[in-house]
Parts: sequence; structure tokens; C-alpha cells
Amino acid sequence: MPAKKEEFSVTPYEVKGKIDYERLREQFGTQSITPELLAKLHHIAGGELPPALARGIYYSHRDLPALLDGYANGKPFFLYSGRGPSGPLHTSHLLQFQLCQWFQKRLGVPMYIQITDDEKFWSSKTGIPREETTRWGYENLADILALGFDPKRTFTFFDSRSIAAMYPLAVRVARKVNYSTVKAVFGFTPSTNIGLVFYTALQTVPAFWPSWAEGRAVPCLIPCGIDQDPHFRISRDLAEGMGYPKPALLHSQMVPGLLGDSVMSTTGDRSDNALFLNDGPKVVERKVRNAFTGGRATVEEQRRLGAVPEVCSIWALWRTQFAETETKFAEVTEGCRSGRLLCGECKSQLLERVHRFYREHEVARDRAKTWAESTIITAAPKAL
Amino acid sequence: MPAKKEEFSVTPYEVKGKIDYERLREQFGTQSITPELLAKLHHIAGGELPPALARGIYYSHRDLPALLDGYANGKPFFLYSGRGPSGPLHTSHLLQFQLCQWFQKRLGVPMYIQITDDEKFWSSKTGIPREETTRWGYENLADILALGFDPKRTFTFFDSRSIAAMYPLAVRVARKVNYSTVKAVFGFTPSTNIGLVFYTALQTVPAFWPSWAEGRAVPCLIPCGIDQDPHFRISRDLAEGMGYPKPALLHSQMVPGLLGDSVMSTTGDRSDNALFLNDGPKVVERKVRNAFTGGRATVEEQRRLGAVPEVCSIWALWRTQFAETETKFAEVTEGCRSGRLLCGECKSQLLERVHRFYREHEVARDRAKTWAESTIITAAPKAL
Repeated sequence: MPAKKEEFSVTPYEVKGKIDYERLREQFGTQSITPELLAKLHHIAGGELPPALARGIYYSHRDLPALLDGYANGKPFFLYSGRGPSGPLHTSHLLQFQLCQWFQKRLGVPMYIQITDDEKFWSSKTGIPREETTRWGYENLADILALGFDPKRTFTFFDSRSIAAMYPLAVRVARKVNYSTVKAVFGFTPSTNIGLVFYTALQTVPAFWPSWAEGRAVPCLIPCGIDQDPHFRISRDLAEGMGYPKPALLHSQMVPGLLGDSVMSTTGDRSDNALFLNDGPKVVERKVRNAFTGGRATVEEQRRLGAVPEVCSIWALWRTQFAETETKFAEVTEGCRSGRLLCGECKSQLLERVHRFYREHEVARDRAKTWAESTIITAAPKAL
Repeated sequence: MPAKKEEFSVTPYEVKGKIDYERLREQFGTQSITPELLAKLHHIAGGELPPALARGIYYSHRDLPALLDGYANGKPFFLYSGRGPSGPLHTSHLLQFQLCQWFQKRLGVPMYIQITDDEKFWSSKTGIPREETTRWGYENLADILALGFDPKRTFTFFDSRSIAAMYPLAVRVARKVNYSTVKAVFGFTPSTNIGLVFYTALQTVPAFWPSWAEGRAVPCLIPCGIDQDPHFRISRDLAEGMGYPKPALLHSQMVPGLLGDSVMSTTGDRSDNALFLNDGPKVVERKVRNAFTGGRATVEEQRRLGAVPEVCSIWALWRTQFAETETKFAEVTEGCRSGRLLCGECKSQLLERVHRFYREHEVARDRAKTWAESTIITAAPKAL
């Protein structure tokens, strides 16, 4: 009798239990990222791969090969990713944007960022004040732009600021989505507010925007956590009927939390579960030093048996963002597994990189604030 | 045993059966317009009453006395009424706007008009093209303004044009309305599109707008068909929790159709049921000549028994819009009931007035088109 599979559930609004990513991919009906696909990207990008793909954090997709083939044949795509602003970003929020920045830098493609300050107000269970989601929207946008986006090729839909630009297309999208669809996809109930019910129309807008604005098919690539796939399944279902290309998706695993949770969520009193970008160096140090690892009970045991990177929140940080090369990542992984690299030393090496990232990011963020406003789209290309 | 009451049902999206207006008022839980209330209005307006109130077409209200008392004590209110544009207006669509114009002229109060070109696209059962609801929005707006509104005191929320101005307030409203409420009020089903589900948030915005913009309580009066009461019950329920005055309502009976229907609806092949403002003189003449009346089978019988104005679509036109004075209205009514005024002659007298109204309205509409644009609100008074 096979062992009972662990139960988990993943929706855009909640992740429960320990996630079996391969099963989740099968449940969602998405494609694996194969070595052939990685080779194709490697070739197109001139002999490089984004770390998050090389290390398998992005592990699933929809329609990526056709998008890359199109690019290779002179049909550029654009990137679309977003953020629901309710507080400071933590490092795992950067993952999808770092991937986008890599694509923009290597392939020269436009980036569209959506800041959903309306949706975050509608979806908040704690009743976040309206002013706060907008205020965090500006802060989060600066953090995102600071990752190295090109001011000339980066555009922001800041929902409360961009609504006049988005609405003509949102009206058309909303006509084609009924309540039963959003109920099924998002698990809405009768007590869900009508803002949230409507929201998927606005979330779909950026995916179709360049095609709508330019009057020709412009392919779209959306990197996102696998939990966000359902949002964009609606966009994909609508695309062809409305005459736009189906957006391609690239799905990441969730980044585990510092406290050992399967997701770096900080809801409730879990603020030590993540490294916030506005944490000071002492707080960062404390969180890393206290973080859950895959180490053994004693040094002796760890030297003898090695540690377990797959369950370690520190290894996850190396893997997702802080190992600057594949060589360094392999060295850490091997050191951990072999027992040569103990947790204290591993944390020290990581902290050096985290501190440096924070110092450089602060400067870049201040600079990004000087041009963030210029990225915000406020006018529609056409009235209807 | 009492006779079985006739069945009817009235929702904002459908009117079925022969309406018992007094029962409907009781079902909806609204107040009667009493002689005392009419006397109060008569006094405030300097010794005049709007024809539609004097003749009992507006027969029900919510909170009108307090609004009028406030006005008398130096607290002006504003008017709000709207139109879902899907085609040319017919004369019965003007009823609520003629009442508003009367209030504006006599009391000097501001008027806010909402043109719901988004909602009409979402609610259309026949799939009206998106461009058409906006195009009709401009046409309908000109027809409304042509009734004599003051360009300096009249403002338009043209949804697709005004969304940037409306959205900050709509976001707050939408947070407070859940799906079960709109389902119950509007009879929505799972196949209702999410635009229509969201729409009540935008319909509520004008009722709160002046209070929101000016940062103080500005009372609102909404004249509407009694069938539209549920729309604004939601606004009323929200008002106090959001710190705005509950909008007062003034409800009219429905104008019967020329073909004898209880409502001047032109859905399907019922275009002869109404006088469209873009009908030419010959079409108007034909529709009136063919209209259903309360006359008898023969002239002799009518001379002897008199006719029945209450069931007559021509009498309804005199009553709602075309009897220029109460004296004329009484003369027509009495002539009909006594058998002295036969249907042919009655129709001739009415046609004279209808033709004159059309000629004058055409000129006024052309003039209104030169300033309609200046009434459209496009910017929000504050960002959040």
C-alpha cells in the first residue's frame, strides 16, 4: 500500500500544507521545464541562463517554447509581473522581478509592472486602510525598479493611478467573465466583496495591453509563483476570443520561510519568517542566525552525516537569490551535504552577501524613486 | 373571498405583469407623497409644483421631507439621475430629467447626470457593441441637457470618460458591498458577468461624490422610476457607515406604452410602443394615431358612456409631459371621461404639442452639443 500522500492546497489567496510541486504541476496541468527548453533559452540569450531557471526554482510553464521561438524569429514579447502592496517587500518577492530583469537585460524586451493597490485593499482580511496600500505601492515599485530595470523599457500600471488607461480594456474583459468562473477559480463566496469579484478583469489588462494599444499581436510572458497560475488561466481562456495572444507563463516554486514554513509568508506574527527590505542590518543578522536549517543536532553528527539542504531555509536563500554564480551555489550545496560546511559558517557567508545586497539596494532604490513616476501609465491609447 | 391579486414583479432589470403601484410601494417599504408634503414643496418653490408631482406620477419617496426642511434651513442638496445608453431616448426617459430641471430652475441646485455606457454594455442581452453604448451616451446626454439645464450647475459622470474621477470613491464603496447583496437586490445568477456585479459601486459614486469632494455632508435627491429603487437602497445602506448622508429618493410610476403595455419598453419589436426623440414627424403621427386608447367601440357609445383615461396611452402622454398647465390637463381628462372629447380630436391636440416639442427640442439639442463636453467630470478631487 503506498504511503498516504500529504495533503496540501494552493490557491492565489492561500497556501496550506507541505507542497508537492510535481503533483501541483500535474493538478494545474502545466508543462515541465525540460533540459531541451533550457538549452533553447540558453542559446537565445547568448549562452546564459537565469540562476532561478538553472537551479530549478522556475520549474513549470505554459507555452514558453513558442514564445522563445517567436523571439528567435524576430517577434519580441513583453514581460508582465505585479505586486499587491500591503507592506514592505521581502527578498522572496523579488524573485519574479529578478527573473524579469534578467530577460529585459539579455533580450531587450519591455517590462510591464502592475501595482494592485485597489485589489490589496479589497482582499485584505485585516482591513488595511486604503491610504496604506497606495503608500506601499510607491515603496514597492521603487524596490522593484531598483533591481536594474531600464527606465526607457519599463512601464507601470499603478491601478489607482492608471485606471483611466486600463478601464476601456477592462470593460471589454469584464463582459466576458462571469461570476461562476471567478467563484470556481478563486474560491470566492457570497461574502466576497464586489471589488474582488471584478478584480480579475484589471489583472488581465496588462497581458493584452500592448496588443490592444499597438493593434497587432504582441506575445506576453508572465513569471509568477505557481500559486498565481489560476489568475492567468482566466486571461489565457479569454485571449483568443478577444483576438490577443495567450500569455505564456513561467511558474516558480514558493520560497520557504526562515522559520521552516513552506512559504515565506509573514501573515500574523510570522515577521521573522522573512527578510524585509526595510529590515536593518541587526534585524537581518538576528533573523538569519535564528533561521531554521537542515543541520544536525550536534557538530559531530553533522560532520559525519552531512546536513540536508532541501529542508534548509538558508540554502533556499543561497539558491533563490544570494549565490552569485553556479559555482558558488554548487560549493555551498556540496559543503552542506558533505558536512564540511557547518551552519554557523554558512550563515556568516550568506550574511556577508545579504548585507552587501541591502547596502547596494538602498542606493539603487533612492535612485529609482527619481524616475519611478515616469513609468506610470495614465492615459489610454484609445477611448474604447 | 377576495379576488386573487394580479401578479407582477418589478426589478431594475425587468418589469413583468400589470403593476399595482400602491402594493409595489408597500412591498418596497417606501413612503407615500402626502398632500402635506406637496404643500411643503409648493411653499419652498415659491408657489409652484412640478407637473409630474401635481399629477401623481411621482407618488412615492424616501426621506424627502428632511431634505426639503434642510433646504429651507439653508442646506442645499444636489440632484442625481442617470441614463444607460443603448439607443435613442424616448419621451418617457425624459420624465425624471424634466423633474430635475424643474428643481434646478426653481431651487438653484446642482445636477449630476450619470451616463452608464459601461453598464449598458455589460447588461445588454443582445450584445450591443461597445462603441455603440458610448456613441448613444453622447447623444442621450445632449438630449438631457437640452431640457434646460444650467451649464454652470450641471455635471456629468460619463462612466468611460469619468472613471479616473470616480474610481477612488468606487474602490471604497466596492469594499463594502458583497456578492450576496447584489445577488439578492438585482437577482444576479452565476452567469452574470463580473462587470455587472461590480457596477453598483459606480452607480453609488455620484450619490456620495459632492460630500466626498467637499469634505462635508451634502444631501442628495435621486428622482427615478420606482423600479430603480433597489439600486439606490444599496447606496442608502452604505451611506451612514461611510460618513455620507443617505440619498433621498423620489419614485415615479412607469409610463405606459403606446401599444397599451404597462411600461414604455421598446425591447424586441415594440418600437411603436414609444415616441423616440429621433422619430420624424410622420413616424410620430403614425405612432400616435395607432396608439392604444381608453375609447369605446363606437362614437355613439363613447358620447354616451365617456372613455377611460386611466387605461389610455394618449392620456398618459398628456399627463406625464404634454399638458402644459393643470387647467389643460383637467380639460383633457374631463373631456375624455365625459365623452365630449373623442379620441381622434384628442390625438390631434396632443400631436400639435408633440410636434412643437420636437421642433424646439431639436434646436435645444444642437445648442447643448456645443457645451455638453464641458460638463463631463474627468479628474478626481483627491487621489484616495
